[in-house]
Amino acid sequence: MRNPQAPAAPTAPTASATTLKGFAAHVFACAGMPEADAAVVADVLVWANLRGVDTHGIMRIPRYVDLIEAGDMNAKPAITIRTETPASLLIEADRAAGPVAMMRGTTAAVRKARDAGVGLALVRATTHAGALGYYTLAAAREGMAAIALAASWPNVAYHGARAAGVSTSPISIAVPGTEPVVLDMATSVVSMGKLNQAKRTGEPIPEGWALDKDGKPTTDPRAAQIPLPMAGPKGSGLSLMIECITSLIAANPLLAESLEGTAEGRRHRQNGFVMAIDLARFGDPESFRREVDRLVKALKSLPVDPEAGEILMPGERGRRTFERRSRDGIPIPHAVYGELHALANRLGVAMFPSSR
Amino acid sequence: MRNPQAPAAPTAPTASATTLKGFAAHVFACAGMPEADAAVVADVLVWANLRGVDTHGIMRIPRYVDLIEAGDMNAKPAITIRTETPASLLIEADRAAGPVAMMRGTTAAVRKARDAGVGLALVRATTHAGALGYYTLAAAREGMAAIALAASWPNVAYHGARAAGVSTSPISIAVPGTEPVVLDMATSVVSMGKLNQAKRTGEPIPEGWALDKDGKPTTDPRAAQIPLPMAGPKGSGLSLMIECITSLIAANPLLAESLEGTAEGRRHRQNGFVMAIDLARFGDPESFRREVDRLVKALKSLPVDPEAGEILMPGERGRRTFERRSRDGIPIPHAVYGELHALANRLGVAMFPSSR
Repeated sequence: MRNPQAPAAPTAPTASATTLKGFAAHVFACAGMPEADAAVVADVLVWANLRGVDTHGIMRIPRYVDLIEAGDMNAKPAITIRTETPASLLIEADRAAGPVAMMRGTTAAVRKARDAGVGLALVRATTHAGALGYYTLAAAREGMAAIALAASWPNVAYHGARAAGVSTSPISIAVPGTEPVVLDMATSVVSMGKLNQAKRTGEPIPEGWALDKDGKPTTDPRAAQIPLPMAGPKGSGLSLMIECITSLIAANPLLAESLEGTAEGRRHRQNGFVMAIDLARFGDPESFRREVDRLVKALKSLPVDPEAGEILMPGERGRRTFERRSRDGIPIPHAVYGELHALANRLGVAMFPSSR
Repeated sequence: MRNPQAPAAPTAPTASATTLKGFAAHVFACAGMPEADAAVVADVLVWANLRGVDTHGIMRIPRYVDLIEAGDMNAKPAITIRTETPASLLIEADRAAGPVAMMRGTTAAVRKARDAGVGLALVRATTHAGALGYYTLAAAREGMAAIALAASWPNVAYHGARAAGVSTSPISIAVPGTEPVVLDMATSVVSMGKLNQAKRTGEPIPEGWALDKDGKPTTDPRAAQIPLPMAGPKGSGLSLMIECITSLIAANPLLAESLEGTAEGRRHRQNGFVMAIDLARFGDPESFRREVDRLVKALKSLPVDPEAGEILMPGERGRRTFERRSRDGIPIPHAVYGELHALANRLGVAMFPSSR
């Protein structure tokens, strides 16, 4: 299955998306999830790998299983609707796996948007939401403009503080076009995943990325503990507001509970926000797509910064990686492969075949 | 009226908010606006001064009058509803003054949110939107969480390009608390207003703020032409998505028209987005306010970065300035005073009394 032209990590084993989805779904089913839910979680994780967002991909499988075993993730959640209005739902996710709860929210937001023009699903008490672009892209394929947010525990410095106060709170916004445009970004300068990657390689990190455990700026990846917010007060302000419009409306505060050190605050918990706007209720969706294409073309016609080399749209690099990895397979770092192998042995699940 | 303790610009004249609102309303009425509209525009501009956002305050009065005289701002707009759904409205603003159109949108979004849980008003074909925090704060006072966005012409570099491609596209998010929390930020590293201020003082600007007319990075404020996006691809990506979910849904593209150099693209035009979420439809609004207060307290209890000196919430500095300037008056730079004086003479409006 390995393609000798695959540019990434030539010595790492690779496997196809189908193979990895089958393996992941099998693991989650063994861990107690209904088959349909296990398939959703597998699809969201492997999609992240296909897009090149490996920090949100199959390397999360062992962590998800740990969360189930610790009782923080519920493999058989009773997902219910707590409140409903003509344009919105507050969904009680009962500690469901993030992908299961967020897809439930996405489907609900799209349905509400078809009825009311705009639909909002607040997803209460979920777990690691996964790569948000998956959900906004799913809504964009239904003819929606979509916004997804996720709130979690404090792991990013609040501007002006020498300690973590807000979360990486990702924001994704997607719209349809001939190719959809999909922004998916953290409100921190750098994601926890990238910081952990730097820890593994040991390469110095740029100034302005992170603080050490005492809240002092550092460029040593091993000392780096707390990523800084993007653009100072703007990033931490956005993250704070995301907690307010997601966790506080859903009556499931995460930051305050954790900063106060309550028992609840020490558990793995997230909340999500998915909004859909039905383009067909405002005008002709085909005209909208054409205008997106026109805007992309206008931006790509600007003079290129030689340092950047190319003008990219949000989500464009991910789409290219998706195409390449769909064809050539997904590279799996040896450490991740080893962890998955150990997990497979422990659960009695057959390890997936790989290129090596 | 001048207070000797006023910390800003000790030699500048000052005037009270009431005085300035009366003057501004008089000017706009002379320029053709109905009295009620003139009062709204005056209130939004002077509110910005009270909050310390002088770039969005009375210094805009001459520019607004220019826009009316050029036919780009309509003093007597026929504001209509183009499309309406249970949770949304697309408002045709007919080139109304931004504050008039955006307040119409805010009122509509709040009304829709009371009916449907969530309300979205898209404001099509307005002009300079003013300080967005005014609108989200107005909605927060009605028990709403609110989001406002504004789209305008390309004046900020698109990441990877050596030219302007996106706009400063501000984002404001507000929620009620004992004191409301109000984020109001541009998606550029620095606002055009701050860049213009640096041009006036001649002080070197930090690296990473702006490009010169050829698209090269510069620290010379006089050479600086194009602000850079906040956090590189994140800021320009957000700005691009704001154009998509505001201008393109409203079928009034701004960036592409301008980048292509069409006749429409050379005119002053903006579009706005105001969303309200009715907290009472999701839970107890009093509990929500208490949770906001609790979160603020938890963040303010973090260890302070000595360089910052203090941990501030979004909008907190503006609230302090509001209190001080409400008491001590609003300082008016000599250049702005001179421009207003010349305008008053030209229109035959009495110049406002000031401290000097």
